[in-house]
Amino acid sequence: MSLTTAQQAFERTYAEVLQFYAEHIQAMDEGRAEEVALTFTEDASLVSPPKIAEPVRGRANLRAGLRKAADAQAAEGVRYRRCHTMMSVRPGPDAELFVRAYVQVVRTGPDGGSHLHAMCVCEDVLVRRDGALKIRERVVTRDDQLRVDPGSSAHG
Amino acid sequence: MSLTTAQQAFERTYAEVLQFYAEHIQAMDEGRAEEVALTFTEDASLVSPPKIAEPVRGRANLRAGLRKAADAQAAEGVRYRRCHTMMSVRPGPDAELFVRAYVQVVRTGPDGGSHLHAMCVCEDVLVRRDGALKIRERVVTRDDQLRVDPGSSAHG
Amino acid sequence: MSLTTAQQAFERTYAEVLQFYAEHIQAMDEGRAEEVALTFTEDASLVSPPKIAEPVRGRANLRAGLRKAADAQAAEGVRYRRCHTMMSVRPGPDAELFVRAYVQVVRTGPDGGSHLHAMCVCEDVLVRRDGALKIRERVVTRDDQLRVDPGSSAHG
Repeated sequence: MSLTTAQQAFERTYAEVLQFYAEHIQAMDEGRAEEVALTFTEDASLVSPPKIAEPVRGRANLRAGLRKAADAQAAEGVRYRRCHTMMSVRPGPDAELFVRAYVQVVRTGPDGGSHLHAMCVCEDVLVRRDGALKIRERVVTRDDQLRVDPGSSAHG
Repeated sequence: MSLTTAQQAFERTYAEVLQFYAEHIQAMDEGRAEEVALTFTEDASLVSPPKIAEPVRGRANLRAGLRKAADAQAAEGVRYRRCHTMMSVRPGPDAELFVRAYVQVVRTGPDGGSHLHAMCVCEDVLVRRDGALKIRERVVTRDDQLRVDPGSSAHG
Repeated sequence: MSLTTAQQAFERTYAEVLQFYAEHIQAMDEGRAEEVALTFTEDASLVSPPKIAEPVRGRANLRAGLRKAADAQAAEGVRYRRCHTMMSVRPGPDAELFVRAYVQVVRTGPDGGSHLHAMCVCEDVLVRRDGALKIRERVVTRDDQLRVDPGSSAHG
């Protein structure tokens, strides 16, 4: 692991990335769809099977999808919390950052009670736009979906 | 997000805050009530419904409450672990820090087996006293309590 | 807590440690046993009751154990994710680092569905070898094992 990038020391990048995710995910989980959309680049893509099996492309489409999901959850009285851990940050060429994290998705329903809804891995490509970190690509995989075909090695 | 405060670089503050919480929460979960009390300011307040519906005010009262809870858990053979993630740290005026984090509270009972007990959000105001971080205000909310009135938007 | 070590600022050490664990644990959970073995020192020891009740000593033995576990999990169609939080990092003498963290172990089985398998505490001694962090000692304790004798205080 290189501890310095062309731009800045690794510890600064790492702290900045953790702070970025804290704000990004809190906004997402609390239904602030328009604010979340701005944390993606204009040309961002996101795929998250099985719910989002085909990539959503472009900030406008992401915003619409985030708004729809937020409204559905509010109507249903459901809250999700995405708890990221084990976040690895690897600087790439052109000042990209490859971020790979575990995500425990916790669901609280209108009946009360919180439980682990899904265990996921979130792989993002971050870039800088006017100094601010933005997500250009996101691929989310669920461990229980990998299990459909136990013979394959999805992470090989 | 500003990456520098009047005092020090953001990455230093961020690392210091993460370390503070690791030590603070481990002490709390392991029943070291007197040590935990010292991580609050003399005039600190804490509210955490439904168990602590009315704010507890002052370090002496906090210490007594922490001691009582620790003794009750030891007698019952119960251990709680508070797992903080998605920690956002925002410097405020007068060198305060506003910290907002997700908390998965995991309970292990005398019957064996660990399970998710509650999904919370912890909102703290940290200040510095003689160089050390201290908690001046803590507000904890539980997602399953928010669900009692699904029509309201507690995080709006 | 000292914010500076003889070597470098605390924030740099802290970011480096978080990155080390992210890569180390992802490799372990995804069955890359040989890669994981290299994150331990040649003379490392690991104990993790009840599964590993007697310490495993030496990198070669660790590698063999990691390979066996990875193969068994692949054959069974099981994935574990170790989610570390509340990571405290304390510099010791001789540039050692004492790292203590909570670990939620999440299991996803071939039947689908992910659940909390165990709540653990992981206590490591890290050292530097040719600039890279390595684990020299690991002690993992499970909260549900501590419960066997509720009268004792395992965390004194």
